[in-house]
Amino acid sequence: MNSKIRVGIVGYGNLGRGVEAAIKQNPDMRLVGVFTRRDPATVTLDDPDTPVHTLDRIEGFVGAIDVLILCGGSKNDLPEQGPALARRFCTVDSFDTHARIPDYFETVDAQAKSGSKTAMISVGWDPGLFSLNRLFGEVVLPEGATYTFWGKGLSQGHSDAVRRVPGVKAGVQYTIPSPDAVNRVRSGDLPTLSTRERHTRECYVVLDDGADAATVKQAIVTMPDYFADYDTTVHFIDEETLRRDHAAMPHGGFVIRSGKTGAGTTQVVEYSLALNSNPEFTSSVLVAYARATYRLHQKGEYGARTVLDVAPGLLSPKSPDDLRKELL
Amino acid sequence: MNSKIRVGIVGYGNLGRGVEAAIKQNPDMRLVGVFTRRDPATVTLDDPDTPVHTLDRIEGFVGAIDVLILCGGSKNDLPEQGPALARRFCTVDSFDTHARIPDYFETVDAQAKSGSKTAMISVGWDPGLFSLNRLFGEVVLPEGATYTFWGKGLSQGHSDAVRRVPGVKAGVQYTIPSPDAVNRVRSGDLPTLSTRERHTRECYVVLDDGADAATVKQAIVTMPDYFADYDTTVHFIDEETLRRDHAAMPHGGFVIRSGKTGAGTTQVVEYSLALNSNPEFTSSVLVAYARATYRLHQKGEYGARTVLDVAPGLLSPKSPDDLRKELL
Repeated sequence: MNSKIRVGIVGYGNLGRGVEAAIKQNPDMRLVGVFTRRDPATVTLDDPDTPVHTLDRIEGFVGAIDVLILCGGSKNDLPEQGPALARRFCTVDSFDTHARIPDYFETVDAQAKSGSKTAMISVGWDPGLFSLNRLFGEVVLPEGATYTFWGKGLSQGHSDAVRRVPGVKAGVQYTIPSPDAVNRVRSGDLPTLSTRERHTRECYVVLDDGADAATVKQAIVTMPDYFADYDTTVHFIDEETLRRDHAAMPHGGFVIRSGKTGAGTTQVVEYSLALNSNPEFTSSVLVAYARATYRLHQKGEYGARTVLDVAPGLLSPKSPDDLRKELL
Repeated sequence: MNSKIRVGIVGYGNLGRGVEAAIKQNPDMRLVGVFTRRDPATVTLDDPDTPVHTLDRIEGFVGAIDVLILCGGSKNDLPEQGPALARRFCTVDSFDTHARIPDYFETVDAQAKSGSKTAMISVGWDPGLFSLNRLFGEVVLPEGATYTFWGKGLSQGHSDAVRRVPGVKAGVQYTIPSPDAVNRVRSGDLPTLSTRERHTRECYVVLDDGADAATVKQAIVTMPDYFADYDTTVHFIDEETLRRDHAAMPHGGFVIRSGKTGAGTTQVVEYSLALNSNPEFTSSVLVAYARATYRLHQKGEYGARTVLDVAPGLLSPKSPDDLRKELL
């Protein structure tokens, strides 16, 4: 084996912690350090021997890091950090604001090209592995329809929306695919499904002292964009129950492509994830794509890339010979 | 759109017929002709305007065909045709004798390189899409296990084995994944499963006049390699029932990767196919990879390739911009 791929982590929340753990499962990689905007003394890693640095000192690590994995959020962190860091480092991120991906790609691409670096954007499971399966589905079955279902899982964005409702002290929201809808799609029916028919939403809410449950519930279920178009159930619970039963971050879902070949033969392809920790799984995907990013850079492929641009073999530590022998 | 990709088909059985149908679903491709070892006058295509040629005239089509899709069998046709044609044409084939893939790759690679051509081997769903999912599974969840289940589906090799038994006039064999085994794997248990626990086999047999059912049954269920290690059921039926109920070629199966992240968090990834026509689906995969083969050749990537070497975006007629916008 060649020398290990030297990885840096930018941002140490749930995702950064997941990346730290995932690197330990990949013997061809080594964690060089964690970079944070917080005071490094306040950041405790799982492995206390890994150095923690302030993000503003990262320029000093050019040449000492092969790939930086950016673990910040898509709303505020990545739009700033992604382009800035891609000029000096090879990067991998999980930018997941679907509508803004084309713009983000262009911005990061220009910076990475100007610095002769490789930047892998929007890695994870959606965008990411689900995107790949939407692609494979439509190229293999051009006459058909693709259905993406999410859940059952904790939605960060919808949980935040619940917590912003006046009278809500704490809460979480689960997105649940409708079993009827999933079964109709699996049968090859090609149904047209409304938003309401695809998913239901379930909220577990702790009320502020003196808040009125009926008012809170009404505010949630009628909230435009987030809940108004769905059948939403609101459960009121106490803080201890929330802590005990709703601290995990499960998620997952399905990408189903249903199509016809020949003279109308039904064919169904399904990809599904059942995740007990959404951030740990996303982190594992980021780490696999860090390997591919390193290799693309070694081959002189500079600029922004997505999962759609990566030959799958580049994700594996195994040689092409071994992959053909073991996996084909 | 640029001019269409010009495709030729070598061999016109179930797979060749499926390729003919799949090309019609891909407007950026055009079927130039079918090449056969039979007398062309005896081969009737779905589209009577497509020319049929004898295979020995194929040298005359160098320059008129961008990609040849080889639709022969892995046992006798491809070991000879694959290397021979890869020196003069870009090719795609479905070579599926798993144990011989490394040797076949080397042979085809040498010929394709010597002719500056691109040869995509072992395309379909297994090897093919299932191989990709075995790869994605193990790179994303390095600590875990991968399980492949086949069926319910008609197995050509096992049906042939049944038909070779003395006293059997006709018959088919279905491979059936054990629901218990699938459920244990889906639960994240990481079970160790014997061959017998993974699949059962079901045979539908028409007896020769005067053949003894008990003798035939015994010969089938004790056949080494094919049936002895499985729980095998044998049903005796008449010829009309065989024709009426067992003429379709359904197949499919599952690739499940179950693994742990972080401090032992279970994560499960599943890919499944439910196919009402195995050859039509395989053909559709071949046609999508013909597009990628054409593009790799245009980029000067010569030699043998497999699905593991193909960036997924190359499979789609859409532009990279559109793919990012629509699918990520």
